[in-house]
Amino acid sequence: MKLTILGCYSATPRTFTNPTAQVLEIKGHLFLIDCGEGTQVQLRKFKVKFSRIKHIFISHLHGDHFYGLIGLISTFRLLGREADLHIYGPKGIKEAIVLQLKLSDSYTNFKLCFHELETTKSICIYEDEKVSVTTIPLNHRVYTNGFLFKEKNLERKLDIARVLEHDIDTSYYRSIKQGKDVPNNSGELISNTLLTKDPLPGKSYAFCSDTKYKEAIIPLIKHVDALYHESTFLDEHEHLCDKTKHSTAKQAATIAKKADVKQLILGHFSTRYGDIELFKEEALEIFEKVLLADDGKVFDFS
Amino acid sequence: MKLTILGCYSATPRTFTNPTAQVLEIKGHLFLIDCGEGTQVQLRKFKVKFSRIKHIFISHLHGDHFYGLIGLISTFRLLGREADLHIYGPKGIKEAIVLQLKLSDSYTNFKLCFHELETTKSICIYEDEKVSVTTIPLNHRVYTNGFLFKEKNLERKLDIARVLEHDIDTSYYRSIKQGKDVPNNSGELISNTLLTKDPLPGKSYAFCSDTKYKEAIIPLIKHVDALYHESTFLDEHEHLCDKTKHSTAKQAATIAKKADVKQLILGHFSTRYGDIELFKEEALEIFEKVLLADDGKVFDFS
Repeated sequence: MKLTILGCYSATPRTFTNPTAQVLEIKGHLFLIDCGEGTQVQLRKFKVKFSRIKHIFISHLHGDHFYGLIGLISTFRLLGREADLHIYGPKGIKEAIVLQLKLSDSYTNFKLCFHELETTKSICIYEDEKVSVTTIPLNHRVYTNGFLFKEKNLERKLDIARVLEHDIDTSYYRSIKQGKDVPNNSGELISNTLLTKDPLPGKSYAFCSDTKYKEAIIPLIKHVDALYHESTFLDEHEHLCDKTKHSTAKQAATIAKKADVKQLILGHFSTRYGDIELFKEEALEIFEKVLLADDGKVFDFS
Repeated sequence: MKLTILGCYSATPRTFTNPTAQVLEIKGHLFLIDCGEGTQVQLRKFKVKFSRIKHIFISHLHGDHFYGLIGLISTFRLLGREADLHIYGPKGIKEAIVLQLKLSDSYTNFKLCFHELETTKSICIYEDEKVSVTTIPLNHRVYTNGFLFKEKNLERKLDIARVLEHDIDTSYYRSIKQGKDVPNNSGELISNTLLTKDPLPGKSYAFCSDTKYKEAIIPLIKHVDALYHESTFLDEHEHLCDKTKHSTAKQAATIAKKADVKQLILGHFSTRYGDIELFKEEALEIFEKVLLADDGKVFDFS
């Protein structure tokens, strides 16, 4: 599981700070999460093979999370894309994109599949045999969802010493990993529990931006390997959180601690602060495993 | 009259090439012409005081000329803009912008005045005592206008020797410049023609992008001080012009020559060519006054 931050600053794009967008590489998928203005340039800059993106998840329809989507779709079109593109986002996203394509007489040759969201309950929005994606309802000024990406439990781990001891043919190894009981070379059925160890649990990543401090998300993100939680402000500006419905670094760390996550990644920094290290310092007072996002940074969780 | 190129490359934004946007400073105005994705970042990068922009002219609704507009408007809002913003562009532009503002619950505090265009005749769309802006109907895949910016004729030029000779009080100088006959110190009315010379003609700038080769624009742009004409292709790809409705450098130069303009500026280069000097070389075979646009370049016509 690998996360590439394309942009992690709030509000307006600037020369050296980009609005929210990130790419999660998980089980062969390349998921794009949010798509602020300029995302397609960031994808090129950080050499992401963006033709591989088949699913785009948009948290909410504020410009700094969404205004780059129409440009990316247009570029896919110009590059001759043929593969379907799935877009998950708040109700209204389809109308905005389709209207702009219509106005420029630029309908795509590939299929655009919109999955519009409007429930405030957590629901599974994507699932295959390797991974699932679930919404994390957030509390922001407009309808907003975070997203929980989970690898499914991996195959059981072969206990090779026991397998050899039981004299089992190699052609059965695949079945053993799948949890099956298999015969040994004498035809005797050997229980799977004697041949395997529990699999490593699948990795999980929770993206929570933008949101006010919201404890209700804790059960949803409990024990995740990595939690990206917005920290627009430092504690000194905590009074701005109520109106803007954003969080401080301290609040993000509190959520991380209560959810007992393995790693907190802070992002969505207001550009009013000169030094983003201040966010880390503040969060470290509450929770010890803190990383800072930054444009172009790659986090490898494998 | 000063022109700053923010972006002049066709189709998709890339790390070092930006889609169309330019700022024309003329008679105290700062006019923004087209607004491809990333324009707001380019405005910051080239230190344009963009709060001074009150009028935005959009040629057509293809993404590389338009997708940066919603982000710029949102940024104006976040920066607390109060001044009215006038937007001139094809019918549909209002719907696209207003829908996106609505979806993000981000209506502007300042007044957004849309001036939607749908005629294929050349019309005056802006006029004050110092400058006028007229459309130049172009021939592209969607409804497209170029724009002709003209300084109005300046005040008449005081012929100071003649004024002194006629013994006229300095309090009349302003009236003389405005073309009035004025009395001398003996009360005798002196004809303005005896006291002034013809003013220098006002400067003019024609922006013509995107378009197929179209001779019908020639009367509209005759003798302009500067013509920006798209040259998406070199002559070797002239066969692509019919389908894409773009021009070659050679065609742009032919238009410049036939319109007897003072200066041709080439832009809207396809990124398939490694070296934009090739566009200049090709155009110079037809017309001698050729400049190349490039992102960040400033042309001063004063």
